[in-house]
Amino acid sequence: MAAQKVLIVYAHQSPCSFSAGAKDAAVEVLKAKGCEVTVSDLYDMKFKATATAEDIIGEVKNAEHFRYAQETKLAWEEGRLSSDITEEQRKVTEADLIIFQFPMYWFSVPAIMKGWIDRVLTPGFAYSQEKRYSQGMFKDKKAMLSFTTGSHEPMFSANGIHGDINVSLWPLQNGILHYCGFQVLAPQIFWAPSSQTPEARKSMLDDWCTRLDKLMGEEPLSFPPLDYFDEKHFQLKPDVAEKFVSQEFGPALGVHLGKPLPHNSQVKAGV
Amino acid sequence: MAAQKVLIVYAHQSPCSFSAGAKDAAVEVLKAKGCEVTVSDLYDMKFKATATAEDIIGEVKNAEHFRYAQETKLAWEEGRLSSDITEEQRKVTEADLIIFQFPMYWFSVPAIMKGWIDRVLTPGFAYSQEKRYSQGMFKDKKAMLSFTTGSHEPMFSANGIHGDINVSLWPLQNGILHYCGFQVLAPQIFWAPSSQTPEARKSMLDDWCTRLDKLMGEEPLSFPPLDYFDEKHFQLKPDVAEKFVSQEFGPALGVHLGKPLPHNSQVKAGV
Repeated sequence: MAAQKVLIVYAHQSPCSFSAGAKDAAVEVLKAKGCEVTVSDLYDMKFKATATAEDIIGEVKNAEHFRYAQETKLAWEEGRLSSDITEEQRKVTEADLIIFQFPMYWFSVPAIMKGWIDRVLTPGFAYSQEKRYSQGMFKDKKAMLSFTTGSHEPMFSANGIHGDINVSLWPLQNGILHYCGFQVLAPQIFWAPSSQTPEARKSMLDDWCTRLDKLMGEEPLSFPPLDYFDEKHFQLKPDVAEKFVSQEFGPALGVHLGKPLPHNSQVKAGV
Repeated sequence: MAAQKVLIVYAHQSPCSFSAGAKDAAVEVLKAKGCEVTVSDLYDMKFKATATAEDIIGEVKNAEHFRYAQETKLAWEEGRLSSDITEEQRKVTEADLIIFQFPMYWFSVPAIMKGWIDRVLTPGFAYSQEKRYSQGMFKDKKAMLSFTTGSHEPMFSANGIHGDINVSLWPLQNGILHYCGFQVLAPQIFWAPSSQTPEARKSMLDDWCTRLDKLMGEEPLSFPPLDYFDEKHFQLKPDVAEKFVSQEFGPALGVHLGKPLPHNSQVKAGV
Protein backbone atom coordinates (compact mmCIF):
# COMPACT_ATOMS: atom_id res chain seq x y z
CA MET A 1 0.00 0.00 0.00
CA ALA A 2 1.33 3.46 -0.92
CA ALA A 3 2.30 5.75 1.94
CA GLN A 4 -0.49 8.03 3.08
CA LYS A 5 0.19 11.67 2.30
CA VAL A 6 -0.63 14.40 4.77
CA LEU A 7 -0.60 18.15 4.15
CA ILE A 8 -0.51 20.43 7.19
CA VAL A 9 -1.62 23.97 6.41
CA TYR A 10 -0.14 25.84 9.33
CA ALA A 11 -0.60 29.44 10.45
CA HIS A 12 1.29 30.75 13.44
CA GLN A 13 3.97 33.42 13.53
CA SER A 14 6.14 31.77 16.16
CA PRO A 15 8.04 28.47 16.16
CA CYS A 16 7.80 28.51 20.00
CA SER A 17 4.00 28.62 20.05
CA PHE A 18 1.68 25.87 21.21
CA SER A 19 0.34 25.76 17.63
CA ALA A 20 3.89 25.05 16.40
CA GLY A 21 4.14 22.30 19.00
CA ALA A 22 0.90 20.75 17.76
CA LYS A 23 2.15 20.95 14.16
CA ASP A 24 5.54 19.46 15.09
CA ALA A 25 3.85 16.64 16.99
CA ALA A 26 1.71 15.82 13.97
CA VAL A 27 4.75 15.79 11.67
CA GLU A 28 6.65 13.50 14.05
CA VAL A 29 3.89 11.00 14.80
CA LEU A 30 2.63 10.78 11.22
CA LYS A 31 6.14 10.36 9.80
CA ALA A 32 6.88 7.66 12.35
CA LYS A 33 3.80 5.85 11.05
CA GLY A 34 5.20 5.98 7.51
CA CYS A 35 3.14 8.90 6.22
CA GLU A 36 4.65 11.45 3.86
CA VAL A 37 4.07 14.81 5.53
CA THR A 38 4.24 18.23 3.88
CA VAL A 39 3.84 21.49 5.81
CA SER A 40 2.68 24.74 4.25
CA ASP A 41 3.93 27.24 6.84
CA LEU A 42 1.90 30.21 5.67
CA TYR A 43 3.61 33.03 7.63
CA ASP A 44 7.05 31.64 6.85
CA MET A 45 6.08 31.44 3.15
CA LYS A 46 4.70 35.00 3.38
CA PHE A 47 1.67 33.48 1.72
CA LYS A 48 -0.35 36.09 -0.18
CA ALA A 49 -3.76 36.30 1.45
CA THR A 50 -5.66 38.58 -0.89
CA ALA A 51 -7.60 37.50 -3.96
CA THR A 52 -6.47 39.77 -6.79
CA ALA A 53 -5.92 39.82 -10.56
CA GLU A 54 -2.24 39.11 -9.86
CA ASP A 55 -3.31 35.52 -9.15
CA ILE A 56 -3.74 35.08 -12.90
CA ILE A 57 -0.84 34.88 -15.32
CA GLY A 58 -1.40 36.84 -18.52
CA GLU A 59 -4.51 38.72 -19.57
CA VAL A 60 -7.71 38.50 -17.58
CA LYS A 61 -10.88 38.05 -19.59
CA ASN A 62 -12.66 41.13 -18.32
CA ALA A 63 -10.30 43.61 -16.69
CA GLU A 64 -12.93 46.29 -16.42
CA HIS A 65 -15.32 44.12 -14.44
CA PHE A 66 -12.96 41.72 -12.77
CA ARG A 67 -14.74 38.72 -11.23
CA TYR A 68 -12.39 36.65 -9.11
CA ALA A 69 -14.29 33.33 -9.24
CA GLN A 70 -14.91 33.40 -12.99
CA GLU A 71 -11.42 34.60 -13.87
CA THR A 72 -9.61 32.09 -11.64
CA LYS A 73 -11.80 29.21 -12.89
CA LEU A 74 -10.79 30.07 -16.43
CA ALA A 75 -7.14 30.53 -15.45
CA TRP A 76 -7.21 27.12 -13.72
CA GLU A 77 -8.60 25.50 -16.87
CA GLU A 78 -5.90 27.15 -18.97
CA GLY A 79 -3.04 26.57 -16.51
CA ARG A 80 -2.60 30.27 -15.89
CA LEU A 81 -2.91 30.51 -12.10
CA SER A 82 0.07 32.00 -10.27
CA SER A 83 2.73 29.55 -9.16
CA ASP A 84 2.06 29.92 -5.42
CA ILE A 85 -1.53 28.77 -6.00
CA THR A 86 -0.67 25.89 -8.34
CA GLU A 87 1.99 24.68 -5.91
CA GLU A 88 -0.60 24.51 -3.10
CA GLN A 89 -3.09 22.85 -5.44
CA ARG A 90 -0.49 20.21 -6.27
CA LYS A 91 -0.10 19.51 -2.54
CA VAL A 92 -3.89 19.24 -2.13
CA THR A 93 -4.16 16.87 -5.10
CA GLU A 94 -1.52 14.58 -3.63
CA ALA A 95 -2.81 14.66 -0.05
CA ASP A 96 -4.95 11.98 1.53
CA LEU A 97 -5.48 14.16 4.60
CA ILE A 98 -5.21 17.91 5.17
CA ILE A 99 -4.84 19.27 8.70
CA PHE A 100 -5.45 22.98 9.20
CA GLN A 101 -3.46 24.04 12.28
CA PHE A 102 -4.12 27.55 13.58
CA PRO A 103 -5.02 29.75 16.55
CA MET A 104 -8.70 30.76 16.36
CA TYR A 105 -8.94 34.46 15.45
CA TRP A 106 -12.37 36.03 15.85
CA PHE A 107 -14.34 32.75 15.87
CA SER A 108 -12.63 31.64 12.64
CA VAL A 109 -9.31 31.07 10.90
CA PRO A 110 -6.67 33.83 10.74
CA ALA A 111 -6.78 35.96 7.58
CA ILE A 112 -3.67 34.34 6.12
CA MET A 113 -5.40 30.94 6.28
CA LYS A 114 -8.64 32.40 4.90
CA GLY A 115 -6.46 33.64 2.06
CA TRP A 116 -5.22 30.11 1.42
CA ILE A 117 -8.85 28.94 1.33
CA ASP A 118 -10.02 31.82 -0.90
CA ARG A 119 -7.12 31.45 -3.37
CA VAL A 120 -6.28 27.73 -3.47
CA LEU A 121 -9.79 26.25 -3.56
CA THR A 122 -10.44 27.56 -7.06
CA PRO A 123 -13.76 26.72 -8.77
CA GLY A 124 -13.15 23.88 -11.20
CA PHE A 125 -10.26 22.63 -9.11
CA ALA A 126 -12.04 22.31 -5.76
CA TYR A 127 -15.72 22.21 -6.67
CA SER A 128 -18.33 22.62 -9.36
CA GLN A 129 -22.12 22.89 -9.26
CA GLU A 130 -22.31 19.09 -9.67
CA LYS A 131 -19.30 18.12 -7.63
CA ARG A 132 -19.74 19.41 -4.12
CA TYR A 133 -20.73 18.24 -0.67
CA SER A 134 -20.98 14.41 -0.54
CA GLN A 135 -20.28 14.25 -4.29
CA GLY A 136 -17.49 16.79 -3.96
CA MET A 137 -14.22 16.91 -5.82
CA PHE A 138 -12.25 15.73 -2.77
CA LYS A 139 -14.60 13.04 -1.49
CA ASP A 140 -11.77 10.51 -1.30
CA LYS A 141 -9.74 12.82 0.93
CA LYS A 142 -10.04 13.75 4.59
CA ALA A 143 -9.59 17.15 6.20
CA MET A 144 -9.77 18.52 9.71
CA LEU A 145 -9.36 21.65 11.80
CA SER A 146 -6.86 21.64 14.66
CA PHE A 147 -6.86 24.87 16.60
CA THR A 148 -6.19 26.67 19.85
CA THR A 149 -8.65 29.00 21.54
CA GLY A 150 -8.14 31.91 23.91
CA SER A 151 -11.29 31.01 25.86
CA HIS A 152 -12.06 28.04 28.07
CA GLU A 153 -14.40 25.32 26.82
CA PRO A 154 -17.49 26.18 28.91
CA MET A 155 -17.61 29.66 27.34
CA PHE A 156 -18.21 27.96 23.99
CA SER A 157 -21.13 25.84 25.22
CA ALA A 158 -24.86 26.23 24.54
CA ASN A 159 -25.20 28.20 27.77
CA GLY A 160 -21.83 29.97 27.60
CA ILE A 161 -21.20 33.56 26.61
CA HIS A 162 -19.73 32.78 23.15
CA GLY A 163 -22.45 30.25 22.36
CA ASP A 164 -22.16 26.66 21.20
CA ILE A 165 -18.83 25.96 19.43
CA ASN A 166 -20.74 23.63 17.10
CA VAL A 167 -22.53 26.65 15.61
CA SER A 168 -19.29 28.53 14.96
CA LEU A 169 -17.72 25.46 13.36
CA TRP A 170 -20.58 24.88 10.91
CA PRO A 171 -19.57 27.52 8.31
CA LEU A 172 -15.97 26.30 8.36
CA GLN A 173 -16.61 22.57 8.36
CA ASN A 174 -19.73 22.44 6.21
CA GLY A 175 -19.19 25.54 4.09
CA ILE A 176 -15.53 24.97 3.23
CA LEU A 177 -14.31 21.44 4.01
CA HIS A 178 -17.44 19.40 3.36
CA TYR A 179 -18.42 21.72 0.49
CA CYS A 180 -15.33 20.52 -1.39
CA GLY A 181 -16.27 16.94 -0.53
CA PHE A 182 -13.68 16.29 2.16
CA GLN A 183 -14.57 13.70 4.76
CA VAL A 184 -14.32 15.97 7.80
CA LEU A 185 -12.60 14.47 10.81
CA ALA A 186 -13.62 15.80 14.24
CA PRO A 187 -11.75 18.99 15.05
CA GLN A 188 -8.86 18.88 17.51
CA ILE A 189 -9.60 21.74 19.89
CA PHE A 190 -6.89 22.87 22.29
CA TRP A 191 -8.82 24.89 24.85
CA ALA A 192 -6.97 27.97 26.06
CA PRO A 193 -3.47 26.46 26.20
CA SER A 194 -1.97 29.83 27.14
CA SER A 195 -3.98 29.76 30.39
CA GLN A 196 -2.75 26.26 31.30
CA THR A 197 0.23 25.01 33.27
CA PRO A 198 3.18 23.58 31.32
CA GLU A 199 2.10 20.11 32.52
CA ALA A 200 -1.44 20.60 31.26
CA ARG A 201 -0.13 21.84 27.91
CA LYS A 202 2.12 18.79 27.64
CA SER A 203 -0.81 16.56 28.45
CA MET A 204 -2.86 18.22 25.68
CA LEU A 205 -0.09 17.47 23.19
CA ASP A 206 0.21 13.89 24.47
CA ASP A 207 -3.52 13.41 23.87
CA TRP A 208 -3.08 14.80 20.34
CA CYS A 209 -0.22 12.33 19.69
CA THR A 210 -2.40 9.46 20.89
CA ARG A 211 -5.16 10.58 18.56
CA LEU A 212 -2.76 11.07 15.63
CA ASP A 213 -1.68 7.46 15.90
CA LYS A 214 -5.13 6.29 14.79
CA LEU A 215 -6.27 9.42 12.97
CA MET A 216 -6.39 7.98 9.46
CA GLY A 217 -8.82 5.30 10.59
CA GLU A 218 -11.29 7.64 12.28
CA GLU A 219 -14.89 7.83 11.23
CA PRO A 220 -15.67 11.31 9.82
CA LEU A 221 -18.35 13.72 11.03
CA SER A 222 -21.77 13.17 9.53
CA PHE A 223 -23.30 15.51 6.93
CA PRO A 224 -26.45 14.95 4.85
CA PRO A 225 -25.75 13.32 1.45
CA LEU A 226 -26.21 15.48 -1.63
CA ASP A 227 -29.10 13.36 -2.88
CA TYR A 228 -31.20 14.46 0.11
CA PHE A 229 -31.68 17.70 -1.85
CA ASP A 230 -33.50 18.33 -5.11
CA GLU A 231 -31.36 19.36 -8.06
CA LYS A 232 -33.23 22.50 -8.94
CA HIS A 233 -33.60 24.54 -5.76
CA PHE A 234 -31.37 22.40 -3.53
CA GLN A 235 -34.11 21.99 -0.93
CA LEU A 236 -34.53 18.86 1.17
CA LYS A 237 -36.69 16.48 -0.91
CA PRO A 238 -40.22 16.13 0.51
CA ASP A 239 -39.86 12.39 1.12
CA VAL A 240 -36.60 12.95 2.98
CA ALA A 241 -38.02 15.82 5.04
CA GLU A 242 -40.98 13.57 5.86
CA LYS A 243 -38.64 11.03 7.43
CA PHE A 244 -37.38 13.64 9.88
CA VAL A 245 -40.82 14.82 11.02
CA SER A 246 -40.97 12.32 13.84
CA GLN A 247 -37.29 12.64 14.75
CA GLU A 248 -35.75 14.71 17.51
CA PHE A 249 -33.24 16.44 15.21
CA GLY A 250 -33.02 17.56 11.59
CA PRO A 251 -30.46 16.09 9.17
CA ALA A 252 -27.65 18.48 10.20
CA LEU A 253 -26.83 21.45 12.39
CA GLY A 254 -27.48 23.98 9.62
CA VAL A 255 -30.26 21.92 8.02
CA HIS A 256 -32.13 21.89 11.32
CA LEU A 257 -35.76 22.10 10.09
CA GLY A 258 -36.63 24.25 13.10
CA LYS A 259 -35.71 21.45 15.51
CA PRO A 260 -33.10 21.55 18.29
CA LEU A 261 -29.54 21.14 17.05
CA PRO A 262 -28.07 17.64 17.11
CA HIS A 263 -25.66 17.62 20.10
CA ASN A 264 -21.99 18.04 19.26
CA SER A 265 -22.46 17.12 15.60
CA GLN A 266 -19.54 19.37 14.62
CA VAL A 267 -17.11 18.09 17.23
CA LYS A 268 -17.82 14.36 17.37
CA ALA A 269 -18.21 11.61 14.81
CA GLY A 270 -21.27 9.41 14.84
CA VAL A 271 -23.70 12.19 15.81
CA MET B 1 -26.73 67.81 16.33
CA ALA B 2 -23.35 66.79 14.90
CA ALA B 3 -23.35 65.00 11.57
CA GLN B 4 -23.44 61.23 11.85
CA LYS B 5 -20.24 59.59 10.70
CA VAL B 6 -20.27 56.41 8.67
CA LEU B 7 -17.31 54.21 7.80
CA ILE B 8 -17.73 51.76 4.92
CA VAL B 9 -15.17 48.96 4.98
CA TYR B 10 -15.35 47.75 1.42
CA ALA B 11 -13.80 44.72 -0.25
CA HIS B 12 -14.27 44.15 -3.95
CA GLN B 13 -11.64 44.20 -6.67
CA SER B 14 -13.80 45.86 -9.33
CA PRO B 15 -15.43 49.31 -9.45
CA CYS B 16 -18.01 47.81 -11.88
CA SER B 17 -19.20 45.14 -9.46
CA PHE B 18 -22.58 44.97 -7.77
CA SER B 19 -20.72 45.35 -4.45
CA ALA B 20 -19.25 48.61 -5.72
CA GLY B 21 -22.74 49.70 -6.70
CA ALA B 22 -24.03 48.93 -3.21
CA LYS B 23 -21.13 50.87 -1.69
CA ASP B 24 -21.65 53.83 -4.03
CA ALA B 25 -25.37 53.87 -3.25
CA ALA B 26 -24.61 53.98 0.47
CA VAL B 27 -22.15 56.85 0.02
CA GLU B 28 -24.65 58.80 -2.06
CA VAL B 29 -27.74 58.30 0.10
CA LEU B 30 -25.94 58.82 3.41
CA LYS B 31 -24.14 61.95 2.19
CA ALA B 32 -27.43 63.36 0.90
CA LYS B 33 -28.79 62.87 4.42
CA GLY B 34 -25.93 64.94 5.83
CA CYS B 35 -23.74 62.07 7.07
CA GLU B 36 -19.97 62.24 6.78
CA VAL B 37 -18.98 59.09 4.92
CA THR B 38 -15.51 57.54 4.76
CA VAL B 39 -14.70 54.49 2.62
CA SER B 40 -11.84 52.11 3.33
CA ASP B 41 -11.46 50.46 -0.08
CA LEU B 42 -9.31 47.54 1.03
CA TYR B 43 -8.15 46.21 -2.35
CA ASP B 44 -7.45 49.71 -3.63
CA MET B 45 -5.46 50.45 -0.45
CA LYS B 46 -3.64 47.12 -0.89
CA PHE B 47 -4.56 46.60 2.74
CA LYS B 48 -2.19 44.17 4.46
CA ALA B 49 -4.21 41.16 5.54
CA THR B 50 -1.74 39.18 7.60
CA ALA B 51 -1.07 39.60 11.31
CA THR B 52 2.70 39.86 11.69
CA ALA B 53 5.39 41.47 13.83
CA GLU B 54 5.64 44.19 11.19
CA ASP B 55 2.39 45.57 12.63
CA ILE B 56 4.43 46.82 15.56
CA ILE B 57 6.82 49.76 15.35
CA GLY B 58 10.07 49.17 17.21
CA GLU B 59 11.04 46.19 19.32
CA VAL B 60 8.54 43.48 20.17
CA LYS B 61 8.54 42.31 23.77
CA ASN B 62 9.23 38.66 23.03
CA ALA B 63 10.60 38.12 19.55
CA GLU B 64 11.41 34.48 20.19
CA HIS B 65 7.86 33.60 21.17
CA PHE B 66 5.87 36.21 19.32
CA ARG B 67 2.24 36.42 20.47
CA TYR B 68 0.21 38.66 18.21
CA ALA B 69 -2.57 39.56 20.67
CA GLN B 70 -0.27 40.39 23.57
CA GLU B 71 2.26 42.27 21.45
CA THR B 72 -0.33 44.36 19.62
CA LYS B 73 -2.17 45.17 22.87
CA LEU B 74 1.08 46.50 24.30
CA ALA B 75 1.91 48.34 21.07
CA TRP B 76 -1.55 49.94 21.10
CA GLU B 77 -1.04 51.12 24.69
CA GLU B 78 2.33 52.59 23.76
CA GLY B 79 1.25 54.07 20.41
CA ARG B 80 3.49 51.74 18.45
CA LEU B 81 1.05 50.09 16.03
CA SER B 82 1.82 50.52 12.33
CA SER B 83 0.29 53.56 10.67
CA ASP B 84 -2.15 51.61 8.48
CA ILE B 85 -3.69 50.11 11.62
CA THR B 86 -3.83 53.37 13.61
CA GLU B 87 -5.40 55.13 10.62
CA GLU B 88 -8.20 52.53 10.50
CA GLN B 89 -8.60 52.71 14.29
CA ARG B 90 -9.00 56.48 14.02
CA LYS B 91 -11.81 55.94 11.50
CA VAL B 92 -13.48 53.40 13.81
CA THR B 93 -13.22 55.75 16.79
CA GLU B 94 -14.89 58.54 14.83
CA ALA B 95 -17.62 56.40 13.26
CA ASP B 96 -21.18 56.16 14.52
CA LEU B 97 -21.88 53.33 12.06
CA ILE B 98 -19.63 50.88 10.23
CA ILE B 99 -20.91 49.06 7.15
CA PHE B 100 -18.92 46.06 5.96
CA GLN B 101 -19.59 45.68 2.22
CA PHE B 102 -18.27 42.49 0.60
CA PRO B 103 -19.03 39.46 -1.54
CA MET B 104 -19.41 36.37 0.66
CA TYR B 105 -16.38 34.10 0.17
CA TRP B 106 -16.67 30.62 1.65
CA PHE B 107 -19.55 31.40 4.05
CA SER B 108 -17.62 34.37 5.46
CA VAL B 109 -15.78 37.60 4.63
CA PRO B 110 -12.95 37.65 2.05
CA ALA B 111 -9.46 37.25 3.54
CA ILE B 112 -8.60 40.92 3.02
CA MET B 113 -11.57 41.91 5.20
CA LYS B 114 -10.72 39.23 7.76
CA GLY B 115 -7.29 40.85 7.82
CA TRP B 116 -8.87 44.22 8.61
CA ILE B 117 -10.77 42.54 11.47
CA ASP B 118 -7.73 40.63 12.78
CA ARG B 119 -5.42 43.66 12.64
CA VAL B 120 -7.60 46.70 13.41
CA LEU B 121 -9.69 45.31 16.29
CA THR B 122 -6.70 45.19 18.63
CA PRO B 123 -7.21 44.06 22.24
CA GLY B 124 -7.33 47.15 24.43
CA PHE B 125 -8.63 49.23 21.54
CA ALA B 126 -11.64 47.09 20.58
CA TYR B 127 -12.29 44.96 23.65
CA SER B 128 -11.09 43.82 27.04
CA GLN B 129 -12.17 41.03 29.37
CA GLU B 130 -14.56 43.52 31.05
CA LYS B 131 -15.59 45.52 28.03
CA ARG B 132 -17.17 43.18 25.54
CA TYR B 133 -20.57 42.13 24.27
CA SER B 134 -23.33 44.39 25.64
CA GLN B 135 -20.73 46.23 27.75
CA GLY B 136 -18.33 46.36 24.83
CA MET B 137 -15.97 49.14 23.88
CA PHE B 138 -18.14 50.21 20.94
CA LYS B 139 -21.57 49.94 22.53
CA ASP B 140 -22.51 53.44 21.39
CA LYS B 141 -21.75 52.57 17.78
CA LYS B 142 -23.62 50.52 15.21
CA ALA B 143 -22.23 48.05 12.69
CA MET B 144 -23.68 45.85 9.99
CA LEU B 145 -22.80 43.40 7.25
CA SER B 146 -23.88 44.13 3.69
CA PHE B 147 -22.98 41.35 1.28
CA THR B 148 -23.68 39.55 -1.94
CA THR B 149 -24.00 35.78 -2.25
CA GLY B 150 -23.41 33.43 -5.15
CA SER B 151 -26.32 31.22 -4.10
CA HIS B 152 -30.03 31.87 -4.06
CA GLU B 153 -31.81 32.49 -0.75
CA PRO B 154 -33.61 29.11 -0.42
CA MET B 155 -30.26 27.30 -0.46
CA PHE B 156 -29.39 29.14 2.76
CA SER B 157 -32.58 28.11 4.58
CA ALA B 158 -33.07 25.56 7.37
CA ASN B 159 -33.97 22.96 4.74
CA GLY B 160 -31.58 24.14 2.05
CA ILE B 161 -28.29 22.58 1.08
CA HIS B 162 -26.07 25.25 2.69
CA GLY B 163 -28.13 25.32 5.87
CA ASP B 164 -29.70 28.25 7.69
CA ILE B 165 -27.94 31.57 6.91
CA ASN B 166 -28.61 32.57 10.52
CA VAL B 167 -26.16 29.89 11.68
CA SER B 168 -23.41 31.08 9.34
CA LEU B 169 -23.94 34.70 10.43
CA TRP B 170 -23.63 33.96 14.15
CA PRO B 171 -19.81 33.81 14.35
CA LEU B 172 -19.50 37.04 12.35
CA GLN B 173 -22.24 39.03 14.02
CA ASN B 174 -21.92 37.72 17.57
CA GLY B 175 -18.24 36.80 17.60
CA ILE B 176 -16.89 39.94 15.95
CA LEU B 177 -19.40 42.80 15.82
CA HIS B 178 -21.36 42.22 19.00
CA TYR B 179 -18.22 41.01 20.79
CA CYS B 180 -16.81 44.54 20.42
CA GLY B 181 -20.10 45.95 21.68
CA PHE B 182 -21.48 47.21 18.37
CA GLN B 183 -25.23 47.41 18.10
CA VAL B 184 -25.62 45.08 15.14
CA LEU B 185 -28.06 46.19 12.48
CA ALA B 186 -29.75 43.48 10.40
CA PRO B 187 -27.52 42.39 7.54
CA GLN B 188 -28.27 43.59 4.02
CA ILE B 189 -28.15 40.43 1.95
CA PHE B 190 -28.09 40.71 -1.83
CA TRP B 191 -29.03 37.21 -2.95
CA ALA B 192 -27.13 36.06 -6.05
CA PRO B 193 -27.12 39.39 -7.93
CA SER B 194 -24.97 37.89 -10.70
CA SER B 195 -27.81 35.46 -11.53
CA GLN B 196 -30.39 38.26 -11.76
CA THR B 197 -31.56 40.44 -14.63
CA PRO B 198 -30.29 44.03 -14.77
CA GLU B 199 -33.79 45.15 -13.70
CA ALA B 200 -33.78 42.85 -10.69
CA ARG B 201 -30.31 44.08 -9.72
CA LYS B 202 -31.47 47.68 -9.98
CA SER B 203 -34.48 46.87 -7.84
CA MET B 204 -32.18 45.33 -5.19
CA LEU B 205 -30.16 48.54 -5.10
CA ASP B 206 -33.33 50.65 -4.93
CA ASP B 207 -34.46 48.63 -1.91
CA TRP B 208 -31.07 49.23 -0.31
CA CYS B 209 -31.39 52.99 -0.91
CA THR B 210 -34.83 52.97 0.68
CA ARG B 211 -33.43 51.16 3.69
CA LEU B 212 -30.38 53.46 3.91
CA ASP B 213 -32.66 56.44 4.23
CA LYS B 214 -33.84 55.24 7.66
CA LEU B 215 -30.88 53.05 8.58
CA MET B 216 -29.58 55.10 11.50
CA GLY B 217 -32.94 54.81 13.25
CA GLU B 218 -33.27 51.04 12.94
CA GLU B 219 -33.59 48.80 15.96
CA PRO B 220 -30.55 46.50 16.23
CA LEU B 221 -30.57 42.71 16.38
CA SER B 222 -31.06 41.24 19.82
CA PHE B 223 -28.24 39.57 21.79
CA PRO B 224 -28.28 38.50 25.45
CA PRO B 225 -26.93 41.18 27.82
CA LEU B 226 -23.57 40.51 29.45
CA ASP B 227 -25.11 40.33 32.93
CA TYR B 228 -27.01 37.17 31.93
CA PHE B 229 -23.67 35.41 32.46
CA ASP B 230 -21.69 34.87 35.65
CA GLU B 231 -18.34 36.66 35.86
CA LYS B 232 -16.26 33.62 36.62
CA HIS B 233 -17.07 30.98 34.03
CA PHE B 234 -19.27 33.13 31.78
CA GLN B 235 -22.14 30.67 31.98
CA LEU B 236 -25.79 31.69 31.92
CA LYS B 237 -26.74 32.49 35.54
CA PRO B 238 -29.04 29.83 37.01
CA ASP B 239 -31.88 32.29 37.65
CA VAL B 240 -31.66 33.52 34.05
CA ALA B 241 -31.54 29.98 32.65
CA GLU B 242 -34.57 29.15 34.80
CA LYS B 243 -36.57 31.87 33.07
CA PHE B 244 -36.01 30.19 29.71
CA VAL B 245 -37.05 26.70 30.81
CA SER B 246 -40.66 27.27 29.84
CA GLN B 247 -39.85 29.26 26.72
CA GLU B 248 -39.76 28.03 23.15
CA PHE B 249 -36.27 29.39 22.44
CA GLY B 250 -33.06 30.04 24.36
CA PRO B 251 -31.63 33.55 24.80
CA ALA B 252 -29.78 33.58 21.45
CA LEU B 253 -28.94 31.44 18.43
CA GLY B 254 -25.61 30.29 19.87
CA VAL B 255 -26.85 30.28 23.46
CA HIS B 256 -29.64 27.92 22.52
CA LEU B 257 -29.87 25.74 25.65
CA GLY B 258 -30.67 22.73 23.48
CA LYS B 259 -33.85 24.33 22.19
CA PRO B 260 -34.79 25.10 18.56
CA LEU B 261 -33.10 28.22 17.20
CA PRO B 262 -35.04 31.50 17.36
CA HIS B 263 -36.25 32.12 13.77
CA ASN B 264 -34.22 34.64 11.79
CA SER B 265 -32.60 36.16 14.86
CA GLN B 266 -29.48 36.99 12.83
CA VAL B 267 -31.28 38.60 9.92
CA LYS B 268 -34.14 40.49 11.54
CA ALA B 269 -34.44 42.91 14.45
CA GLY B 270 -36.95 42.24 17.20
CA VAL B 271 -36.49 38.45 17.22
